[in-house]
Amino acid sequence: MNPSAEQDWLETRFDELWPITRSITGPGFRESVDILQQDIPLELQSIPSGTAVFDWEIPPEWTINEAKLTGPGGEVYADLDETNLAVVNYSEPVDKQLSREELESHLYTLPDLPAATPYVTSYYERNWGFSLPHTTYSSLPDGEYHAYIDSELDESGELNYAHTVLEGESDREILLSSYLCHPSLANNELSGPLTMASLYRRISAWENRKFTYRFVIVPETIGSLAYLARYGDQLQENLVAGLVLTCLGGPEGTLSYKQTRREDALIDTVVGHIDDRMDREFRIRRFDTGGSDERQYCSPGFNLPVGQFARTVYGMYDEYHTSLDTKEFMRVGSLVESAEAIEEVLETLEYAGYYLNQEPYGEPMMSKRDMYPTVNDPDSYKEGNLVDTMMRVLSYSDGTVSVVSVADRYDMPVEEFQLAVEQLCSAGLLEPFEYTPGYPTQFDQPNR
Amino acid sequence: MNPSAEQDWLETRFDELWPITRSITGPGFRESVDILQQDIPLELQSIPSGTAVFDWEIPPEWTINEAKLTGPGGEVYADLDETNLAVVNYSEPVDKQLSREELESHLYTLPDLPAATPYVTSYYERNWGFSLPHTTYSSLPDGEYHAYIDSELDESGELNYAHTVLEGESDREILLSSYLCHPSLANNELSGPLTMASLYRRISAWENRKFTYRFVIVPETIGSLAYLARYGDQLQENLVAGLVLTCLGGPEGTLSYKQTRREDALIDTVVGHIDDRMDREFRIRRFDTGGSDERQYCSPGFNLPVGQFARTVYGMYDEYHTSLDTKEFMRVGSLVESAEAIEEVLETLEYAGYYLNQEPYGEPMMSKRDMYPTVNDPDSYKEGNLVDTMMRVLSYSDGTVSVVSVADRYDMPVEEFQLAVEQLCSAGLLEPFEYTPGYPTQFDQPNR
Amino acid sequence: MNPSAEQDWLETRFDELWPITRSITGPGFRESVDILQQDIPLELQSIPSGTAVFDWEIPPEWTINEAKLTGPGGEVYADLDETNLAVVNYSEPVDKQLSREELESHLYTLPDLPAATPYVTSYYERNWGFSLPHTTYSSLPDGEYHAYIDSELDESGELNYAHTVLEGESDREILLSSYLCHPSLANNELSGPLTMASLYRRISAWENRKFTYRFVIVPETIGSLAYLARYGDQLQENLVAGLVLTCLGGPEGTLSYKQTRREDALIDTVVGHIDDRMDREFRIRRFDTGGSDERQYCSPGFNLPVGQFARTVYGMYDEYHTSLDTKEFMRVGSLVESAEAIEEVLETLEYAGYYLNQEPYGEPMMSKRDMYPTVNDPDSYKEGNLVDTMMRVLSYSDGTVSVVSVADRYDMPVEEFQLAVEQLCSAGLLEPFEYTPGYPTQFDQPNR
Repeated sequence: MNPSAEQDWLETRFDELWPITRSITGPGFRESVDILQQDIPLELQSIPSGTAVFDWEIPPEWTINEAKLTGPGGEVYADLDETNLAVVNYSEPVDKQLSREELESHLYTLPDLPAATPYVTSYYERNWGFSLPHTTYSSLPDGEYHAYIDSELDESGELNYAHTVLEGESDREILLSSYLCHPSLANNELSGPLTMASLYRRISAWENRKFTYRFVIVPETIGSLAYLARYGDQLQENLVAGLVLTCLGGPEGTLSYKQTRREDALIDTVVGHIDDRMDREFRIRRFDTGGSDERQYCSPGFNLPVGQFARTVYGMYDEYHTSLDTKEFMRVGSLVESAEAIEEVLETLEYAGYYLNQEPYGEPMMSKRDMYPTVNDPDSYKEGNLVDTMMRVLSYSDGTVSVVSVADRYDMPVEEFQLAVEQLCSAGLLEPFEYTPGYPTQFDQPNR
Repeated sequence: MNPSAEQDWLETRFDELWPITRSITGPGFRESVDILQQDIPLELQSIPSGTAVFDWEIPPEWTINEAKLTGPGGEVYADLDETNLAVVNYSEPVDKQLSREELESHLYTLPDLPAATPYVTSYYERNWGFSLPHTTYSSLPDGEYHAYIDSELDESGELNYAHTVLEGESDREILLSSYLCHPSLANNELSGPLTMASLYRRISAWENRKFTYRFVIVPETIGSLAYLARYGDQLQENLVAGLVLTCLGGPEGTLSYKQTRREDALIDTVVGHIDDRMDREFRIRRFDTGGSDERQYCSPGFNLPVGQFARTVYGMYDEYHTSLDTKEFMRVGSLVESAEAIEEVLETLEYAGYYLNQEPYGEPMMSKRDMYPTVNDPDSYKEGNLVDTMMRVLSYSDGTVSVVSVADRYDMPVEEFQLAVEQLCSAGLLEPFEYTPGYPTQFDQPNR
Repeated sequence: MNPSAEQDWLETRFDELWPITRSITGPGFRESVDILQQDIPLELQSIPSGTAVFDWEIPPEWTINEAKLTGPGGEVYADLDETNLAVVNYSEPVDKQLSREELESHLYTLPDLPAATPYVTSYYERNWGFSLPHTTYSSLPDGEYHAYIDSELDESGELNYAHTVLEGESDREILLSSYLCHPSLANNELSGPLTMASLYRRISAWENRKFTYRFVIVPETIGSLAYLARYGDQLQENLVAGLVLTCLGGPEGTLSYKQTRREDALIDTVVGHIDDRMDREFRIRRFDTGGSDERQYCSPGFNLPVGQFARTVYGMYDEYHTSLDTKEFMRVGSLVESAEAIEEVLETLEYAGYYLNQEPYGEPMMSKRDMYPTVNDPDSYKEGNLVDTMMRVLSYSDGTVSVVSVADRYDMPVEEFQLAVEQLCSAGLLEPFEYTPGYPTQFDQPNR
């Protein structure tokens, strides 16, 4: 697909997803998954409200039909029909006459961005409220207001998440995870699932796929916790690398990579290597406890090798969590560039990991496989040729050194090792070895 | 206690301890412990002369009554009644007329400090002798001298040491060890036990005490060996950190810390961190085999995490082991400052160690504990606040990373983590974990 | 032996070895070993042609009697009688009339060194050919040529190698390995075995020999593979360090050391330390997969601690593998200097390794062994004296820290520790401990 066709496709999908009133539970999430299923064969799953999930509990399912704040003169100051951000997400129902003063604690604005409506949520404490531009707020007259929110918090509802798996030669997995719970926010919401759609299309088109790829769409935080409760053991066993996709649009020119909690997982090394030695730059952030769903994947009891890619990073731009986070701010073209860069990382990861030399006692006899010059004359002592590269890969492929580390050792870009790795695998001299270095903690057995 | 009251108290104790004729065995050690018992509830213990202690043997118990060197004209040139340093410590009895020449090999002086009397000992070889100022020595007339030493070396005597334990919440221990065997030396003797007295007073006044504190007073070298023979196994099991207290007075402005043999024990990290990132400076010495009782505690078969604090360090000042090492040289005020600095180190150690996150699978739900803002609005994304600090501590508290290391990772002083640690412990989200990283050696089982 | 006598001896041996028509199998190798047996009591061993050796097979035994290329006018253009390099090593027999054009693909020259004859081999593919100077080649007339090679490739022949062992106090071994298969090449052939002869003479003359020394002469590559097939397990168990000797002559002033695959084996540390802190410089190369028999010893299934010494390194000089690699290029004097330098490395290795303190609980009592001043007066606190050095060695000799690492820690040349080590061993306080740090790989058990 050429970039412009891809951009058109993603823009169509953006426009379908944008108006839906999403939250961490409820019909909005399911409708959004329906739309994404046109591009990724996601399987929708559910977990009942009230279920304990580690230290958490699945909240009631929220449905919202209408939300309107009407002033003393009948003027409408906030209206869900106008923008999904008008109502505090997860508001309980209300139908009340109140004075301006009584209303005060239920209103949210951004004094520093007076024209913008903030995005406000109150998932875990019953509350209600309206968001509105500070300019509107400043002009609110005294008098009696009507706060009307027609919502439902269903204790016997459910929370949903969705995933699909693209099988590869190995059952070792790469995880791509994004979230879908913010309504009408662009960079900090739709950029993730849309970049994932592009990556699904790209990866499913690869001729070979060494690893199995798992695509996960969850409501943020509670959704990844629910996902870990069900699939955490499996991920601990099989996960080679994971990436959380968030905020992948916006004006920044280069992608930013947030390291895994381990900081030296294979994915960390590969991204750092590409930045250092290949024709692509990343801004690299060390692990920290703020962020998106990698907070759960990298929690110390799981400590999964999950990094995160973002372009214009959450919390570091003014439009974050406001009505200014629009399609225009996000730029659909940025998503195509993000998908392209992440695809390159994954393509590199496919060959840059751990292998086991199948003839480790002495050098393998390369000439009987036509992989070595049979006549040894002075011309054959050239450095840096394919044979040298193969011998280097063979020497270090003892299951504890990755190909990307060999490349670093020789100060070469790892792409110059790809052909050697492929030829050695074809000749049966090398086999992939899915080594995950131990990260010792005192948490031996997850006990959930 | 205000510093000036503390100084008066320590000076009184100094004056009581100064005149006693101490040695590594004998009544002088016991009398000194009696005096210290006014401030520290020390329990006196004994081990018989002749007992094998590792590669050593407990020496006979030494008692000295009188020592006098009289010249040809009846002049007294050295007299135990004048100074405890006048007689070579552990001198065997002698009552002999000798010529000036025969006397020569029994006289000790300091030609470079002609007014000072040196402190000389001969514990492990039977010998006798006198110390005197070089000026006196130079003027000794020819003629017959009378060397008279009324001492006793009792093969059925004993060696003593003393200790006490201040219980804490945990049975994991902090060791404070000093020695009490040099007679009439100030910086290199009384500074240690007196600083310990101040520390005992301080630590017993703390509101909470996480660790158990063990205070040990021994005769140097042979005493710590005897102590290890009895308590070494227990220390190996429980010791989190230890400090030998020596030479804590004198003119130097900052304390000097000598690292443990491991060099990266928790106590080493904490002292280095305070020096680097907090408002106190230390001079840090790498481990070496010279020193005080840490030589025994850190011997490779024990390899205990014991460092050492000194101010004006042994062997690095001219007054060392001479009659010039007086109260005036030592300065009682320096001891108060030493105790204050060491108390800060111990206070930091109390919270800066290892913990185990009690909800390690996913993030704990902070909001249900009122530890997190329940409404998520744009104001709540501030860096460096208490919630962030708590999340960072939780993320790394897997039992292998200390809080001081987390602070180093974030380039912050560890004191900014204290409140977070305390609140997480109160909330039951964190529990102390007394991790001691393994230091592999080939000495598996002490076999004493 | 003085250097000039040694040089004369080695030159005599050089002249005996030079004319022999060697290859990786055949009578030339055996004759060469016969000559070396005058200096090293080598035991000749054999392995039959056709035997599988790891991924390889022992080739047929090659014998050559005559090789001559005659031109149209009867002129001889290449003749084994003139130089061993004239015939491609391992040529199959041929007796054929051919045109100039048909001959073309069987001729090897060096256009950039037109006066030199290249050294060409074809061990593992049946082939035949002649090497000649490019000037000769350029003047070859058209017409019919006679290619005559009287050789034999005996499928029921054998391959030979030779070794001897100089017993030491310990059964832990040092390996010295060189190769003997190139005919009439000096630096890249005879320099190795001749330096080994000098080292055998030197080491057998040492008063004490802690380690056992194994001297191995093989045909390059296939010979070390065969040797590993038979002795690899034994080497894995006992080898403390190994050195491949190659290209030890030539104009370079300093020896070059190629590190083991481990890069931090004891031998690597010792050579680096001598270069850094003692009066001898080395050029140090990191491990790489090109080289001599260390390619086999360091293959990942064996991963033996084998480094390599060379002076004028293979592949880095124009004369490499050509008729210009002569005695004059090699310089016999260089070999004496090489042997001297390597001897110093081995002498250092003898005491610079791992020891176990025999009194590790507390300090040993040095005074009862007369290793410590019995009277403790101020004069005895001098740094850097023998007692200090002994205490430092004792403190770190827990079986995990080598003496050379202790020297590095104190920024001292390790030779200043030799006396301390010797005295402590004599006193029974230290025992050699043949620790080889584990280098974890996934290859647990050699399965040959």
